[in-house]
Formats: sequence, structure tokens, C-alpha cells
Amino acid sequence: MLPLKNNRRDFVKKSILGTMGGVVLAGSKLKAAPATLAKPSDLKLAFAGYTFKNFDLDETIKMIQKVDVNYLCIKDFHLPLESTDAEIAAFHKKLADANIKGYAVGPIYSKTQEALDKAFDYAKRVGVDMIVGIPRIEDLAYLDSKVKEYNIRFAIHNHGPEDKLYPNATVIMGHIKDFDERIGMCFDIGHNMRDGHDPVADIKKSKRRSFDLHLKNVSKAEADGKTVELGRGVIDIPAVVKMLAKTNYTGHLAMEYEKDMEAPMAGIAESVGYYRGIVDTLG
Amino acid sequence: MLPLKNNRRDFVKKSILGTMGGVVLAGSKLKAAPATLAKPSDLKLAFAGYTFKNFDLDETIKMIQKVDVNYLCIKDFHLPLESTDAEIAAFHKKLADANIKGYAVGPIYSKTQEALDKAFDYAKRVGVDMIVGIPRIEDLAYLDSKVKEYNIRFAIHNHGPEDKLYPNATVIMGHIKDFDERIGMCFDIGHNMRDGHDPVADIKKSKRRSFDLHLKNVSKAEADGKTVELGRGVIDIPAVVKMLAKTNYTGHLAMEYEKDMEAPMAGIAESVGYYRGIVDTLG
Repeated sequence: MLPLKNNRRDFVKKSILGTMGGVVLAGSKLKAAPATLAKPSDLKLAFAGYTFKNFDLDETIKMIQKVDVNYLCIKDFHLPLESTDAEIAAFHKKLADANIKGYAVGPIYSKTQEALDKAFDYAKRVGVDMIVGIPRIEDLAYLDSKVKEYNIRFAIHNHGPEDKLYPNATVIMGHIKDFDERIGMCFDIGHNMRDGHDPVADIKKSKRRSFDLHLKNVSKAEADGKTVELGRGVIDIPAVVKMLAKTNYTGHLAMEYEKDMEAPMAGIAESVGYYRGIVDTLG
Repeated sequence: MLPLKNNRRDFVKKSILGTMGGVVLAGSKLKAAPATLAKPSDLKLAFAGYTFKNFDLDETIKMIQKVDVNYLCIKDFHLPLESTDAEIAAFHKKLADANIKGYAVGPIYSKTQEALDKAFDYAKRVGVDMIVGIPRIEDLAYLDSKVKEYNIRFAIHNHGPEDKLYPNATVIMGHIKDFDERIGMCFDIGHNMRDGHDPVADIKKSKRRSFDLHLKNVSKAEADGKTVELGRGVIDIPAVVKMLAKTNYTGHLAMEYEKDMEAPMAGIAESVGYYRGIVDTLG
């Protein structure tokens, strides 16, 4: 008997197909998180739609299939907020035919309460249980009422030192701690690092409210750090993956690759490979 | 203080530049292997030239630079055996300008003793201390005299179940065990696996005579298994890397990617990323 490796991704693919059954997506009811999740191989690799800002949906799907990834956070340039139900159904069918699940929408910037209303209506019609977004600080109490009304989670995204509202995880956690637990964070580890904050320590601190994560690396821990291939930056990605497993993180790791955005395939592939090398080594 | 990751590859690059000093390459004298080498991060990632069989040298260099690799085993379609010394110098200069070192030549098939003569003359003129090749079994005694004459190592390459001479590592080791220790193996773990032999166990068994290694993965442990991206096949690559470190392997890991050979960049990048994810996790 040869000692052959388990093919983890075949399993992931089968379980998506099993639960999706065509274009059926998660409903608006929140599902209970599994009681235990301790293995890095249980983590779910995804893409942040922004990675493909220069590509239409067909091109985006081809690139996602090339690296055999099965989850996408839906960005509005691929599925506008004004989409009809028929357009939404066609969008989901295209993804499902490629074994991809659109697991959330965003990031969505909301500069008014009406914009928040529109985002929740959109998420409900899209059939996802989470919005990634950037609300105004003064709208957080209103946001609290919306997550209660819709039972849809809202993950606030941090965008680094230039972001006057949410530069890092610590600021987000400070703002949301007294609100409904369906308000949480989409933790961008790169922007956090550019703001001088350690991603690994902050994953630990925010574990109950981290709903989504933007997986990336940056060239330096300063404001002008740039996105680089996942294994080439200053963030210790193996330590990030270990801490996510240790804290029983049940969200997705949405790779956001912002280098060479006109021709990102090689950098995306290197980054996906790097992540999988870590996971396969940790087991 | 933020806990930043060491940038291992910067170090590798600097040490190549430091020792190469332009186009100066390893001479024909064998260097002593370091006394201890126990860390996966000390292993040297390279490319087998065959990966780029559809690309000229300029295109090849661009692809190698894209994934920041610094070593190449030189294939004859990039530097023919009949090359003049001026052509060889120009070849080395191009590589050196891209921080790449041509560390060996081959694989070279030798069906006569004259062909072996030609291969050794070529290797000497190219300035490398190793030939990867496929000699006839009946020429092994002659090969023994050549490695003594030139003090250039010869690494015999295994090519799987279709290979009547050297299907796997065990067969090679059986043939060479009584010859000069400068005759060794360029261990192709993919072809070995297709022939039903465990690469990890065979790395351990052949450790003193493994001079080079073709790093790849295959879709199954059967003759019709195909090369796939490094993390997607049946070979447990983290276990391979661990065993190479454990056995103090001092050669290169020459990635040979034989899928999508007309447009291999994404698969190459994913494979390089996968390898580095393993190494960075193991430390």
C-alpha cells in the first residue's frame, strides 16, 4: 500500500454540491456554528470579489476555477444592487454550474440609512446571510435594528490608516461591542498590518465577532505597504492560519489580491498554492 | 514591535549574488557539503528546464522571475551541446542578470560512449559540477571513469514504468551502488510514484546518492497518472520536504511542471506557492 494523500478539496467540492443542490443558497436564517472546528483543513478558502474588479463574471469564474476555489464574496460590479430576481437567479446558476457558492455580498459602502436599507434588501434577495460593509458610525444603532429585523449578519470592514472610520480591528471592536452579536467584522489582515496592528493577536481578540476575513499579505507594516503574493509579505500567514484554527473560526478566508490587477492570475495562483501548502502541512 | 516574518528569499538572492559575482559559476571541483542542514528553509527551489520546453530563454527567464526562483537545471533546447564558449558566456550573463544560476545540465540521453564524452565536455565548458542524464546500463563502468576524469557528478534520472532502463529509484540505486560516489540520482518523485514506489521512503533509502530531485505531483500512483499542480496530487509533498530536510539533502528541488505546457504560468505559480507554504510552515 502506497501512502497516498487525502484529497481534501474533492471533499469540499462534494459537500458544496450536496448542500447547494443547484442554485439553492443559504436562507436568511442563521445556522448554528459547528461545536468544534480545530483543523486548518476545515477552514474555507474564498475570494473577495474585488480581486476581479477588472474582469466580468465569466472571466472571474474561469480564474476561480483555475485555482479550484469554491466560494466568492459577491461584489456589486458582478451583481449590481439593482439586479432583478431573474438576474440574481441567473448569477447564482452560473456560479453553481462552476461549483462556486456566493456566500456573502460586499463590501458595500453605506453613507445613509437608506443605503443600509438597500443593502439589506439586496442581501435578502440575493439569499445570503451576511453583508460585508462600511456603515457610518452614527448609523450603528440603526444597523443594530436592521440585523434584528432581517436576521442577516453585518461584517464591518477595516481599511487601514487612510480609513477615518475603521482603520483596524481594534477600532471596529470598540464600536460594535455593545451592539447585537450579528454585527461583527470582516477582518482585513493587510490593512490592519499597514496600520501597525498585529493580525494574529487581533484574530484572537476578536474571535467571537470575526465573521469574514480578507486574506492577503503586504510588503511592509506601514501605511504605504502594498499587497504582495501571500507568501512574500511581512505577515506570518502560517501563524494566521494556526490562530484561526485555534479560535475555531468558522467564516471564510476571502483572498483579496490587489497586485497586478490587470493580469493577476499568476499572483492569485501562487497565493492560493501558498495557503494550501500551509494547510496541508498543518493538517 | 510587530512580529514580522523573516524574508528568507531576500537572503537567498543576496547569497547567490555574493558567490556568483557576475557570471562566475561553480568550477569543476566538488565543494564539500555543509556538515549540518536540518531546516526546510535551507532547501533550494529550482526549475528543471524541461518545464519551459515551449519557451525560449527570454520567456523562460521572465516566468522564473515571476515566481522569484533563483536556480535552473539547463536543458539543451536553451543551451545546445554544440554551443560556443561565447554563446555559453552570453547564456550565463542573461541568467545572472536575472539572479538565476544554472546549477547543472540535463537531462541528457546518452546512447553511446561518445555521447557521454560529449556530455562531459559540455558540462565542463558550461562550468557546472553535475550532469543529469540517462546512460545505457552497459556504459556505467565507462561513466565511472568519466566522473573520475572530470570530477563532475552524474545524476541518473528515473522515468517511470515506461522506462526500460531506470523506472524508479530502487533500480538506479541497484545499478550504481558499487560505482564511484560521484554517480548518483536525479530523483523524479512523480515517475517513481507512477511506478508504484513511495517517494518519501525512497528519499530516505537513497540519501547519500540523491544529487538532484524533480519536484512534482501526479494524479494517481499508476502508470497513466499525470502531472498536476504540486498540491493537488497523491504525493504527500509536506512529507517529502520533511524527509529531505531530515536526510540533510543538499541538492536542489527542481520543479518540473508538465501540465498545460503551452500556458503553464498559473500552474507553476500555484506549485511554487504551495512549496513555499510548506517550507514557511515547517520553518
